[in-house]
This record gives sequence, structure tokens and C-alpha cells, in this order.
Amino acid sequence: MTYESIVRTIPSWLNGRGPESAIVVSSRARLARNIRGISFAHRAGRESLDDVMQQVADAASLAGFDCGDMFVNSGMSKLQKQVFIERRLITSALAAKDGSRGVLVAGGEDRSILVNEEDHLRLQSFKNGFDPRGALSMVDDIDTRLSQVVEYAFSDRYGYLTACPTNMGTGLRASVLIHLPALVMTGEIQRMIRSAAQLGLAVRGYYGEGSEVVGNLFQISNQRAMGRNENSIVESLIAVVSRIVEYEKQAALTLFQEARSQTEDKIWRSIGILKTARVLSTIEFISLISAVRLGIVLECVDSGMIPLLNELMVLMQPAHLQELTGAGESSPERDAVRAGYIRERFVDVRL
Amino acid sequence: MTYESIVRTIPSWLNGRGPESAIVVSSRARLARNIRGISFAHRAGRESLDDVMQQVADAASLAGFDCGDMFVNSGMSKLQKQVFIERRLITSALAAKDGSRGVLVAGGEDRSILVNEEDHLRLQSFKNGFDPRGALSMVDDIDTRLSQVVEYAFSDRYGYLTACPTNMGTGLRASVLIHLPALVMTGEIQRMIRSAAQLGLAVRGYYGEGSEVVGNLFQISNQRAMGRNENSIVESLIAVVSRIVEYEKQAALTLFQEARSQTEDKIWRSIGILKTARVLSTIEFISLISAVRLGIVLECVDSGMIPLLNELMVLMQPAHLQELTGAGESSPERDAVRAGYIRERFVDVRL
Repeated sequence: MTYESIVRTIPSWLNGRGPESAIVVSSRARLARNIRGISFAHRAGRESLDDVMQQVADAASLAGFDCGDMFVNSGMSKLQKQVFIERRLITSALAAKDGSRGVLVAGGEDRSILVNEEDHLRLQSFKNGFDPRGALSMVDDIDTRLSQVVEYAFSDRYGYLTACPTNMGTGLRASVLIHLPALVMTGEIQRMIRSAAQLGLAVRGYYGEGSEVVGNLFQISNQRAMGRNENSIVESLIAVVSRIVEYEKQAALTLFQEARSQTEDKIWRSIGILKTARVLSTIEFISLISAVRLGIVLECVDSGMIPLLNELMVLMQPAHLQELTGAGESSPERDAVRAGYIRERFVDVRL
Repeated sequence: MTYESIVRTIPSWLNGRGPESAIVVSSRARLARNIRGISFAHRAGRESLDDVMQQVADAASLAGFDCGDMFVNSGMSKLQKQVFIERRLITSALAAKDGSRGVLVAGGEDRSILVNEEDHLRLQSFKNGFDPRGALSMVDDIDTRLSQVVEYAFSDRYGYLTACPTNMGTGLRASVLIHLPALVMTGEIQRMIRSAAQLGLAVRGYYGEGSEVVGNLFQISNQRAMGRNENSIVESLIAVVSRIVEYEKQAALTLFQEARSQTEDKIWRSIGILKTARVLSTIEFISLISAVRLGIVLECVDSGMIPLLNELMVLMQPAHLQELTGAGESSPERDAVRAGYIRERFVDVRL
């Protein structure tokens, strides 16, 4: 993988062909791991961090990565790091630190390993649509391969040891990125978030927090990694999210029955604006895309549009726009370039 | 003329082919006249009103109207009256009164005579675009013909006598309906209104008043009908409005130079929304049409669209919509029908 090949493509896990893709954008599994005998990353000295980095580099090919797949923090510009954050390859916590830190990225970006973020290793995998089992199985495979050469910090009593106790045990965080416009519009989202919390799941706005959630996108994940095995964590996530998906569909249909004109109006105007606007801010764009996605659930809009929506969700983010179009950092310039790019990609979208 | 032939067509004076049609929608001349020896309409008894009506009916053919061109107030439904108000054929003052009152309408609706409104006769003529001279000459022609058989109330000292002193003298009110979005956006409109007042012209919002003006449409007319002859009144209107038209063009160009993306954005989004909306209120529709008209002045949008904009300005008014589509009186229903009609008429408009 080269940076250039990454920035211009859509991650394979956003091709829109997974189960329930109109509602569940993607599924993710992440395992936190640390290497026995080395201090946790926040306490580790330079040499220890280098040691971790070296062990990961040595094990890369065994875990299914090419030697060119490693991107070291210090070798990346601020803009490049921002692009990786927007693609969920690294976190802003990682980008902010110096020293031997970075990420291994497999082709298609469905598998990656963060090195020396909060933990020595964060193995992560992504799947299209609603497929947490697939994501778990993929990340487990990396884990198994790595464990042949890397000795993990593990306690018989606590399981895998991690820098933060909430990750201790399995080290697993399984999550889905889910689009819930109808539950937001009907106001049922708050009750849903409380119920999910009682069932051990955290629901967070993907863009913004609380009442400021933009684009109706939420991330739902397990709150604790301990006390259950990996499969049980994933199955419980699947059970709850399946019900939420049904609630969302039901709420969407109710909305359609009770306010059909208003709902269709919102959907079609959004397409009209995406086809014509000369200026589009990130926030407005995300809201418009959300309305079109609702249109797919309601079968007003062809589901063949999901890949385009996912593509734009990735490429129209600020750092991506700068890299793709050479636009400057100023929002007015980016907003104009964003509108132009989207207009071109929407030329063939029929009204 | 039949009611049915009127309600489904566009008045000939809105075909959009007159001078400066992108900015000046239409020009109007109106002469107030009363019949000698009969009390003014607000003091006249039933018999006097009948007498006026009879005299107008007798003179109709001489003035260039067919005998079938008379629409009597009492013979019209509330909805039909509303349609006539929306077409500027009658006033709400006329529609509200009973007794022998009504309007003579010539084919194309560019000439009409209100009977027993504030004055016994109100002769009016409309022209496309910026053509007050043409309007005056047309209304003068009706006046001359009528005066052969109808004896007007006239004083050598005051000129034509009218129910309200502001109309006394020539009885002439000459006006233009003018679209001034750039002067509104730049805030110069207030200064322009004050200057026009000092020059004896009244500027009023066409939809709404003051800061509530919707759609940036204004009516500019002479304030007094006395002390000058008809030609002088019209020439002075032309002189001032010509300058306002130039100011508007200049303001539009400045807007385009200083905020090109935002201006194009507003214009093209408006077209996008007109092509896609499923619900459109009167107020929103008028604002959208205003933005498209600005696009014509700025040559972003083809001037061939003016007739369509004028057509919609007439036919999308509430009473017209009810008559054309059978929509009920409720706004949600009308707003949905309006959006559907406009979408169909915008199908061939290219983005």
C-alpha cells in the first residue's frame, strides 16, 4: 500500500454490498494487545517503543501484511495523518504523539494494526454493512498469526492486559456504524440509547455528540471487554443491533405513512441540492447524504446509490478534499470544491 | 372571454417578451373615471349602480370589448373572484361588495374596465416588461372611445373628478412591477425607496409590506394624479425606473463579482429545489422564482425561462391552483399539488 493509492480509493469495506447496507454502514472489531515485558505505551521510553515497532514490523508478513504497508507517524505530514484519521486508520490520539508510532494497513484497508497508540497493538478489521461476526473472524485471524511470534501480556485471571482497564479481558471492542434518521425524527432515539446502555452497549453520535449529532450516524459498541468471551460479546451486539435495525425500518415506514409528502420532499430536495449546489459545507453535505440514505430504506431511491454515498462520505471530508483537489485549507474554498466534485458525481443521478 | 378560457391561460401581458423583461415584469396604466350626474359608487344607491353598469355595457363594443366580456360580481363564486384578484383583473375591494359591480375583460387581459369599484369606471391596461408609454396609449384609446358615449364628471379646475382626491386630475396611475433582488440583498433598496418618494413615486412590496417583502417584487407608481398631464406623469416614471433598472443591474454584477459562488449557489439550488420538491408553499415558491430570475439577469440562466417564471407566478397562486388541479383549500394539499405542477414544468430545465 502507498499513501497515494490509499487517498484516492474507497476502502473495500465501504463498497455498500454488505448486509443491511442502507442502515448499517459498516461493522468493526478491534483487539487491544500489549507485549509482555514492555511497559505500556504511555509509560514506555523511546527504546521500548522502538522495540514494539520492530517486533510488529518483523511479524507483519506473518500477519498477512506486506513490508510496504507500514506508515510511521514521523514520516507523515499533518495532512496525511488527517487523511488517515478520516479513514479510521489511525486516531487523533496517535497522530498527536511522536516517537515510534504508526499503522500497518492491508490492501483494501479492511485490516490494520495501530502501533503504540494507547496499547502496543490495536488490531482492527472492518466489514461492509452489518457483519460483526465477519469482522471478529478477520481480526481473530490476525491475532492468531501474530501470537505465533509476539508474546502478549496475558493474565490467567484478567485475560489480556491493557493500558485502560475497560479493555482488559478479551481486549475486544465490536461496533457498528449505523444510520438512524427515522428514530431521530420520531424522537425514539433517546429511549433506544438508554435501552442499549442497560444491555451493556454504548451508543455515540459519529459526527458530534448528544443533541448535536449530525447526519444521524451512530456508533454502537460493547462497553466492557471482560467477563465474557469474544463470541458472546459479538452475538449480544448482533442481537441488540438487529432489533434497532427493525425499529428504524418500522419508524421509517410510520414516517412515510404519516407524512409521506414531507418525507419525500426532504429526500428529493436533498438530491436536487446535491445536483445543483455551488457551496456545500461538511455539515450540510452530511445531512443531505443522510436524507438520501433514508430514501433508499424507503425505496424512493435506488439502493444502487449506496456505494456513491459511501464514497462521498469518505472523499468529501476536509483533508481528503485538500489532497484530492489541491483545495486550500479555507472552508469557503473547500465548500466550493466539495460542491463541484459532488455535482459531477451526481450528474447521472436521475430526478 | 369566458371564465374557463381565462383561468387556464397566461395573460398576454406576461409573455415575457417586453423590454427589460428580466427585471421589469410588467407596466400598467389605470384611469379613474366617473359618470356625470351619478353619485360616487360608495354613496350611490342600487339604481345608480345599475345605471352605471348599463351605460358601460352599452358602450363596451365601442371601447373594443365583446358583449361576452362582462363578468358581474354577483355571478361569480368566491373562488372565481379570487382567481380574478390573483390576475389583477379586480381588486379585493370590488370582490367584497355586492350590487351591480364587475369587470369587462378584453381578450388577452391586457385591457379591462372595473365597474363600480371606488370609482364608476377604472380603465386599466397592461404591457409586457418596461413599457409604460404603451400602457398609457392603450388605456387612452379606451378612454377616448368611451368618452364618445359616456359623459364623464370633469371640472375645468380639477380635471377628472374621483371618489378619492389622490386620483383627481388626470385620474392616472402608471406603475411597473419590478424585481429588485440585488438591491434588496445589498441593502440599497431602502435608500432607493426614499429617493423615489422624493421624486413623487411610491414603492410598495408586491407581496407583503416593509421588511416582509417576499420575492423581491415591488410596484412603483406615481403618487399624485394632479398638476401634470398624463405624458409628463409617465415620462417621469420612466426616467426614475430606468435609473433603478441600471442600479439593479449594477448591484447584481457587484454581487456576482464579490460573492460569485454564493450567488450561483442560491440560483442553482433554487432550480434544483423547483425540480425536486414535493411540497412548496406560496412564499417559498416566490422566493425560489426570484432567485432564478436573478440568474437570468446575471446570464447564468437562459432568458428563455422568463415566460415559464411568469406563467408559474400566475398559475401557482392559491385560487388558480384550486381551479386548475381541483386541489382543496388546505395548504398542505395545495403545497403538494403546487410542487407537482412545477416539477412537471421544470422537467426539461437543464441543470
